[in-house]
This record gives sequence, structure tokens and C-alpha cells, in this order.
Amino acid sequence: MPEEYNVTIIGFGTVGAGVADILLNNSEVITRRSNVKLNLKHIADLDITTDRGIKIPDGILTTNTAEAIKDADIVVELVGGTTVAKKFILDALNNGKAVVTANKALLALHGEELFAAAEKSDSDLCYEASVAGGIPIIKSLREGLAANRIRRIYGIMNGTCNYIITRMERENADFASVLADAQKLGYAEANPSLDIDGFDTAHKTAILGSLAFGKWFGLDPVHVEGIRDLDSRDIVYAQEMGYRIKLLGVIKNDEGKVQMRVHPTLIPRDSLLANISDVFNGVMVEGDNVGQTLFYGRGAGRSATASAVVADIIDAALNLKTGAKRRIPAFRPGAQFEQVLPMKDITSRYYLRLEVKDCPGVIASITQILADRNISISSLIQHETKTEAHSVSLVILTHPAPENQMNAALAEIGVLSINQSPVKLMRIEDL
Amino acid sequence: MPEEYNVTIIGFGTVGAGVADILLNNSEVITRRSNVKLNLKHIADLDITTDRGIKIPDGILTTNTAEAIKDADIVVELVGGTTVAKKFILDALNNGKAVVTANKALLALHGEELFAAAEKSDSDLCYEASVAGGIPIIKSLREGLAANRIRRIYGIMNGTCNYIITRMERENADFASVLADAQKLGYAEANPSLDIDGFDTAHKTAILGSLAFGKWFGLDPVHVEGIRDLDSRDIVYAQEMGYRIKLLGVIKNDEGKVQMRVHPTLIPRDSLLANISDVFNGVMVEGDNVGQTLFYGRGAGRSATASAVVADIIDAALNLKTGAKRRIPAFRPGAQFEQVLPMKDITSRYYLRLEVKDCPGVIASITQILADRNISISSLIQHETKTEAHSVSLVILTHPAPENQMNAALAEIGVLSINQSPVKLMRIEDL
Repeated sequence: MPEEYNVTIIGFGTVGAGVADILLNNSEVITRRSNVKLNLKHIADLDITTDRGIKIPDGILTTNTAEAIKDADIVVELVGGTTVAKKFILDALNNGKAVVTANKALLALHGEELFAAAEKSDSDLCYEASVAGGIPIIKSLREGLAANRIRRIYGIMNGTCNYIITRMERENADFASVLADAQKLGYAEANPSLDIDGFDTAHKTAILGSLAFGKWFGLDPVHVEGIRDLDSRDIVYAQEMGYRIKLLGVIKNDEGKVQMRVHPTLIPRDSLLANISDVFNGVMVEGDNVGQTLFYGRGAGRSATASAVVADIIDAALNLKTGAKRRIPAFRPGAQFEQVLPMKDITSRYYLRLEVKDCPGVIASITQILADRNISISSLIQHETKTEAHSVSLVILTHPAPENQMNAALAEIGVLSINQSPVKLMRIEDL
Repeated sequence: MPEEYNVTIIGFGTVGAGVADILLNNSEVITRRSNVKLNLKHIADLDITTDRGIKIPDGILTTNTAEAIKDADIVVELVGGTTVAKKFILDALNNGKAVVTANKALLALHGEELFAAAEKSDSDLCYEASVAGGIPIIKSLREGLAANRIRRIYGIMNGTCNYIITRMERENADFASVLADAQKLGYAEANPSLDIDGFDTAHKTAILGSLAFGKWFGLDPVHVEGIRDLDSRDIVYAQEMGYRIKLLGVIKNDEGKVQMRVHPTLIPRDSLLANISDVFNGVMVEGDNVGQTLFYGRGAGRSATASAVVADIIDAALNLKTGAKRRIPAFRPGAQFEQVLPMKDITSRYYLRLEVKDCPGVIASITQILADRNISISSLIQHETKTEAHSVSLVILTHPAPENQMNAALAEIGVLSINQSPVKLMRIEDL
């Protein structure tokens, strides 16, 4: 007979309903596969009357979160946000319950406090669903690739941004119109800032970077740029030069220092990562032994996220069953690299687009400024432009250069009278 | 202080050397990440004198396998083959040792006997490296996606075949010449049959299919066709129609029956799976909740395979440390589907290429035979051919049709006097 464990879900939203759905409808296959029986004990929410499109048996829905936690072996926090969600998780841990959460923002901001509480109460705290939805990337990084020194991680981890960029590329459309349509279709929030300004990707980048390098860095050292200023011209020019633009979480071991940054990035057009489209997520992990791996799937949505949440519930239940609580703790410090490299100190290849007056000496003066900074050009295309009269688009790809040198060069270029609009800069990663 | 576990490697070949390399050189990062210390206790092999390009400390190399097993907590079988390897694994299990193996052939043939021995001795038997090398596909399927009913798995799981097909496609070269070159370059064995005739992929398909559906099916029910007869013309024609050809392991839940088959398969050219090239492997897993996922990486080679072997060693060590032996047993029966569908009973889309006399009524007679069998044509192209005079290539893609109807139609077509050579048939999978 499989042992039975009571599961309480706090937060009856989209994902909460998806988790309940799996626990109610896939429990047989879960028991067959894992030999544990998961009982949906309670779903706690302030609103237990609105129809979520799923039939919940009587006696499960409750507004009494404290009781719901007490009755559970495993508590699933799906409230979201960083206030009450934190309280619920701490309450559950302090009551000795295993906790499963998908709350990337909370982990990125308050991870260390939560991990300490989990250690103090000798309980599991699992968060597979916090990064890349249904893709088992956290398990793969911590267990499947545990024999590797991680060199690089590149993640397309926000479906809303990837959807917008994909449509801008396919339809040669501008950001604002695609965003508006995405909001109509429900692919983007009414307030889209968390997604399109890169913060959501930054939360996930902070989590993966910390797991990869054994120190909980938190959100502060992650450099963040979103896609709000993405210009369809740059998508076209990038393609012309053999690249696609993606909003990437970039995590690197840079000679003993850690890089963690989020920004629109040019990557080779023929790479698998560049061909991950629409709302899908993909994470490339490079280890010293395994080489390059890639993990692809749905990064959001009711059922895909619920799939990861329930995988964590099963893991926690197996630990309870075998007496192996915290077999793999929420986070094990063991820093390989203590410091995060400031952006000014990174080295990168760059994409530059300048809108300049169409007059003699323009290219000479710009390339001279780059040359003075020892920044080498790998390719350059001048485009006629229809947007402004007597104006041309100058697109430059550089070889690797220090970011501070590039900033200095751009400052010099910026004051030239030939500029029709600010220089557009993006970074290039050759996978 | 991390607990220490002694590891014995049996078989000092390429992968064995890779595992030793990781245990000797990445032990610090492994201990940091997993809080267990792995000691390379012994490497047992008949030949302990040949240089494997790695410096092994004194006292580790031995020809005494029995002693090497006795001294270990975890035994790694990397001998390969299905005779002595089986004996070593059974000896280790019967001595209560945890066992890690990469031996897909042995598992496919004798899995149940090995699983029974592991259960009897209450020991772990881990085999992540047996499928798709460094890709943590077994852990992902059994743990990361444990909340899903598996619908379909498509795997490119043999690097040699994928390398050969990729080069045939890029260079429009014929199979024999690419194989010969691959053998020169060490990408193919002197006796390549295990790879190119599909048996290696079949072993992996048997393992994944059994894990997906909870019954150890073994190798017998897996239908196997290799790439030996792959014709570069078919690669070109497939591309023309929007497809690429890959040697796929196909695993499906077909209305309560299981499909397991290995054959060259046309898949949509723009799919991620179709864009996995050279020696790389990729496995697409579709679950009822997570939807489509894809796992990509190196499917073979010293370091990538060793990465998976060491991940298993760490898993086994963590189970020993937490007293959670067999937390996830080698195989847990819990059949969702008992039967494997015979090939004659499957339904598939088909690619047909006929070399026929260039004379009136040819298309009419062939399409009539298909129509009589209720086989519907989705597209048809007639190609002029330079190979034989008065001969044309007729390429037909069909809608889904029962395999037995297709076989019957091909039998009728085969006896037509218009045929210049046997009809070429391949199956199509639309991902």
C-alpha cells in the first residue's frame, strides 16, 4: 500500500486550479509511478466561490489558511507576491510542513530567510516551478548535471517577451502594437512591466545563477534591461547579419567572477536557442563535462506550471516516505565564486545602430572613435533609411570589447553633431 | 563534514576514464554541491597497463574485480556487453552495493532480472547514462515529469546515425561514402551494425518506453529499421516537401496500447527536433500536463556520458547518506498499458518513392491502388530522373492510413510492370 500524504494548496488561481486538477485526475498514474498517494486536503483562498472551471469535492475549499496548513503534510504556496506568500511559507515551515512554491520573486528577494527557516525546521522547500514552468531545469541543474562545473547558462525564460519578439519578427511589427494585441489575447498582463522590463527574467536568472555557483546572490547584482525599447529595425538588421534577438538571462563563470545579466541579446540565427519561438521557454546549460545541453518547454500556463509543482510535491512526499527530508536541501551554500562582476567590467561583443546624417566623413569619424578605444569592428552595414531625409542607419558589430571602453566610445559618439537619434546598443552572445 | 563513499569502476575504457577523471578532478565541486565525498577506490580491468591518457594514483588500478567490488559502496559497471557485465552487476548487488551502469543493451535484454536482484538486495541500480548520454532524460522522465501521463516520446538517440544523416544532407552524399568517412574519423565503429541498423536506438527506446508506461517490455516488441538503406534522394525530396529525415525512436500511447518503433522518420523541417544535427541527441517528451518538452545534448563521448554516470553515483550516495536506498527503485512496475501494438496494426502517414517507367497511365494506376485501399494522398510530386532513362521518380505523401492497408497496397504496386526498382517507404511523424 502506498503511503498517503495530505496536500494543501494556498491560492486558488490559475496554477492552483491546475495543481488541484492533477491531484484529482492524475493521482492514479502518480501513485503507480511513485508509490505515494497524494490527497488534496485543502485549497485555501479568500475567494472560494468564484468558478475556476474545476469541480472540487466538498470540504476541500476553505478560507482558513492556518487550519489548512495544520492539516497538511505538504503545503503548496501559489498566492504569489512577496508579502502574505512569505508569511504562509514561514508558517508552514515553522509547523514542520514541507513547502512547494512557484514564487520566483519571493525567492529572489527573500530566499536566504526562507532557506534558513526550512533548515531550522528540518523541512523541504521545493521550487522547480519558479523557473521555466514545466521544464525540470532546477532538478536538471542540481542533480542531473551535478558532476559539472557550470560554465554558462542562457535562458529564454519569459514567455510573454518571447511571444512579443517572435511576432515583431514574423510580422515586422512594432513593439507597442504587438504588446497591445498580446494584452488583448491574454499573453501579456494589463500591467506588463514585470515581464517586458525584464524583472521576471531577472528573478529566474538570480535563482539559476545562485544554484549554478553555490551562493545566493539575490536580485541586486543582476543587471536588467527589458524589451520595451526593442525596435523592429534592429530585428531586421540582426537577421541580415545572421542573428536573432532574444531576451536572455545570461549567467557566466568569467574567470572566477560571476556574470548575471538580462537584456535583449543577439544570438546566432541557426542555434536551437534562437529557434525557440512564441511563448515557449528554453534554457541552455553548458557544463565542463556534459558540454552544451538545452531544455525546452512551456514556461508558463496552468497545466505546465502545475506539472512542475506536482513533481515537487512527489519529491517531498518521497522524502517523507523514506525519511530523507532535505535529502537535497532548498539551497546548499558552497560558493565556487563569491563575486558578481559589475557590468562596467564585463567584456562582450556589441551590436550598434546609429542614425546619422548622410554626409562625408561620418563612418570615418565614428570608426575612428572606436579604433581609439581599441574596439575592433567585425562587420558594418550602412542602410539607406526612409524614416528621415538625409539620414542613414549605420549598423556595426564589434569583436569582444570591455563594456567600459564601449561606454566611453558611445559617450564620445553621442556628442557628435551627426547623430539624428541616440545610438542603439545591444550585446551579442555567440553560443 | 560530508560523508565519504568508495566508488569502484569496472571497465577502464573511454567512459571509465571519463568517470575517473571527474571523480579525481571535480570532487571538490561535487562535494560543495551535494555534500558527499566520492572516493575513487578502485578501477578494475583486465588491462591496467595501457595508457588511457589520465594519471591514476597508485593502488587504484586492479585486475581483481571481486576485491574491487567488496571495497566499494558504489560499483560502476562500464564493461559493456551482456555477459560478464551482467555477472559483475549481480555480484555487486548481491554484495549489497549500489550499482551504476550505462549498459543499455544489458538493461533492454535482462532488465527484469537485474531489477529483481536490486530489489532482493535492497540496493540502488541507476542507469541515467544508458539513454542519451549526458542528457538527464531518465531523471526528467521519472521525476521532473512524474505528474504527467506520457503521450509521446520521439528520440534522436544515436549520435553516429545523426552524424551520418546530417552529412548526407549537407553534402548530398551517399550513405556508404559518409559511413566510410565517419569510420575514419572515429564517429562510427569498424562494425557499425549496432548503430546504423537501429539496434542501439531500439535498446534506448525499450528503456524509455518501459519507464514511460510502467511495464518492462524488453527489446522484442520494438520494431527496428536502421539507416543502411537511406538514399540521399529521399533526403532531398523530403526537404522539398518540408521535412527532414531522422532516425527516431518512436514511443506512443495509442489508445491504450503502446507503440515502440525505430525507423528513419520524416519530421517537419522547422521543428526543433529536426534541427538537432551532427552527433547530438535530442528527446521530445509530450505529457498531458506539461505539453511538449525537449531535452538536448551530447548523447555519447567520454565526458558527457561520464557526467550522467557521476550524477547517478551522487544520487546513490545521497540515498546511502539519508538512509533512503531505493527512494526511486530501478524500476517500479505499475503498468498503464500492458500491450505493445503490432506494426501491422499501427496507423501512420507515409512517404513513398517509386521509380517507374515514364509512360502514360502510371500515376493513374498507382493512385487507383491507393484509393482502393482508402489511402488518401496529401501530396505528390513527379521528378524527372537522370539515373535511369525513360524513368521518373514519383514521390507520394499520404494522410494517416493503417499499416496493413499500406502493405497490401505496396504488394499490389510491387507487381506492376512499371516498377524500375522496389518502392521506398518511410513513415512521417508530425510533431
